[in-house]
Amino acid sequence: MRVTLKDIARETNLSVTTVSLVLNQKECRVSDSTRSLILKTAEKLHYYPNQLAVGLVKQETKTIGLIIPDISNHFFANLALGIDDEMLKHDRNIILSNTNDRPERDLKSIQVLKSRGVDAIILAMASNVDQTHIRSYKDIIDTSPIPIITVDRCNPAFNCSALKLNNKKGAYNAVSYLLSLGHKNIVCITGPANSDSTQERLAGYEWAYRDAGVSLPEKYVFHGDYLKQSGNEAMKQILQETKATAVFAFNDLMALGAYHCLRQEGLSIPEDMSIVGFDNIDFSDMLEVPLTTVNQPTYEIGREAAKRALLEITSPEAEKQTISFEPHLIIRKSTAKPR
Amino acid sequence: MRVTLKDIARETNLSVTTVSLVLNQKECRVSDSTRSLILKTAEKLHYYPNQLAVGLVKQETKTIGLIIPDISNHFFANLALGIDDEMLKHDRNIILSNTNDRPERDLKSIQVLKSRGVDAIILAMASNVDQTHIRSYKDIIDTSPIPIITVDRCNPAFNCSALKLNNKKGAYNAVSYLLSLGHKNIVCITGPANSDSTQERLAGYEWAYRDAGVSLPEKYVFHGDYLKQSGNEAMKQILQETKATAVFAFNDLMALGAYHCLRQEGLSIPEDMSIVGFDNIDFSDMLEVPLTTVNQPTYEIGREAAKRALLEITSPEAEKQTISFEPHLIIRKSTAKPR
Repeated sequence: MRVTLKDIARETNLSVTTVSLVLNQKECRVSDSTRSLILKTAEKLHYYPNQLAVGLVKQETKTIGLIIPDISNHFFANLALGIDDEMLKHDRNIILSNTNDRPERDLKSIQVLKSRGVDAIILAMASNVDQTHIRSYKDIIDTSPIPIITVDRCNPAFNCSALKLNNKKGAYNAVSYLLSLGHKNIVCITGPANSDSTQERLAGYEWAYRDAGVSLPEKYVFHGDYLKQSGNEAMKQILQETKATAVFAFNDLMALGAYHCLRQEGLSIPEDMSIVGFDNIDFSDMLEVPLTTVNQPTYEIGREAAKRALLEITSPEAEKQTISFEPHLIIRKSTAKPR
Repeated sequence: MRVTLKDIARETNLSVTTVSLVLNQKECRVSDSTRSLILKTAEKLHYYPNQLAVGLVKQETKTIGLIIPDISNHFFANLALGIDDEMLKHDRNIILSNTNDRPERDLKSIQVLKSRGVDAIILAMASNVDQTHIRSYKDIIDTSPIPIITVDRCNPAFNCSALKLNNKKGAYNAVSYLLSLGHKNIVCITGPANSDSTQERLAGYEWAYRDAGVSLPEKYVFHGDYLKQSGNEAMKQILQETKATAVFAFNDLMALGAYHCLRQEGLSIPEDMSIVGFDNIDFSDMLEVPLTTVNQPTYEIGREAAKRALLEITSPEAEKQTISFEPHLIIRKSTAKPR
């Protein structure tokens, strides 16, 4: 059973009021020896204050809700780590909610976390949302009595702070680098056509060409689905249908698929084909030809989201902000001048 | 502000008592139309019950504490996913505590989580604990008023249920397979010498030789530290000092280090050297020569730990159990008969 103030009062032969005043660090006329006796007894009995009761009184539970699509995905695990490290500094804990990328679970988790009395929610939305979902999210977010901060994905219609990567800039950096090496015929392997990240990265690709004053290749968009196999298949098609000398895959998994395809065809990387990925996932520098890729500062995004949540808890009137993170290109061995 | 029963009473012109009886599903003489009005108003105003108050009354908060060394490590992320999926089925949430593998943080987290009123704690202990830590863990675990379940690592002195992999059997399976292919000179790249997993896997290696009636190689233990670079260095040493035809690395990261060393030396896998790893981490089947490795059923361990915690919440008198999980060998392309 939980040790209560009553148990300490009984053990010390003091009143519950005295014990309460001392343990809650309220001012009271108590001798140092009594104070010391109470503190030692509390320690001996393993007393710890009931934060549920404290939470009811203070209307603050020092817990933050975190809703993410998939904790076993490196991106979200690193995000969670950044959030947790920051929260730890401020003596807060995270209540985790994993949604398997389902919008219905996002919506339910927000309600559940509120009923648990969390002080704020950090939300990485599911990816496959439709217009009905968007209306539900908007309704819940806009009327929420506690701060909700979105990370990675957001919708401009929501009245909340949002933290995300500058995808367009990331793609711009990757393609500008390839152009600077002398490549003219650079092709893309994209994610799902309707995803925000695909559209933003494609815009970055085209921006780089425009900026360099180089005309776009006749065919440069090859669609993938962010999984490895689609990179492999797109690469086969690219070898058959184009004279590309460089490939920009919109994530590292598809870059890996393309990499395996090239090696199976007996082609050399980067001599026969340069490859750039996106994400900088763990194994990208473990390949025999380490991958040039766009780094997402996931851990930092997590920390900043935590800071933003803490700020909005103490200053509910603060203006909502959209905070964009600048990616940077990590140049490794998979890119070189064209032959 | 949070919507309360009072707000619903005001909006419906009913008494707080009536509203409370209906929303808490207590028996009461209320017409269907009144009941319906209350429910609709509660929905309209986004009313949700205050689980802190419910928790105080019921002495149950429907939250479980999870303490792990590193959420960005695949092993623990998959463990957390298994726990969360199971908890979701039972309408429970996880409060996450990431310790950066520090025993002091484990001990503090247990106290913090208790003060948050969690119903049980699932603990994956830090790895570098000394005897003083062990005594502190034992004291806290043995006197805990709520169930504490350990996963991955445990100490036999603790009075708690423990779930872990049968490391010895995993190593036995790996080495028996290599022996069955005809290898006689198999060497190990171990983890840190004093870690439980190293000792158990080494015992499994020796067991396999004994069982096959093959005499042990003169030198077969090469120490690593579970990081990639140590696998690379151990492999160089193995090539210089032994005539090994197969290597069993105690984790996949070191297997990858060994793999890169062999390729840099111009040797073929598996023709010149067979390699087996341990863990089956994501990239192990993404290598050009996919890695034969011992699979840890991490997700299942997480689910079973969750089930165990739920059982001990409802049946505190249940006997503590140590549950061992059987690993299995995944045979891919990095192993073959010796030349």
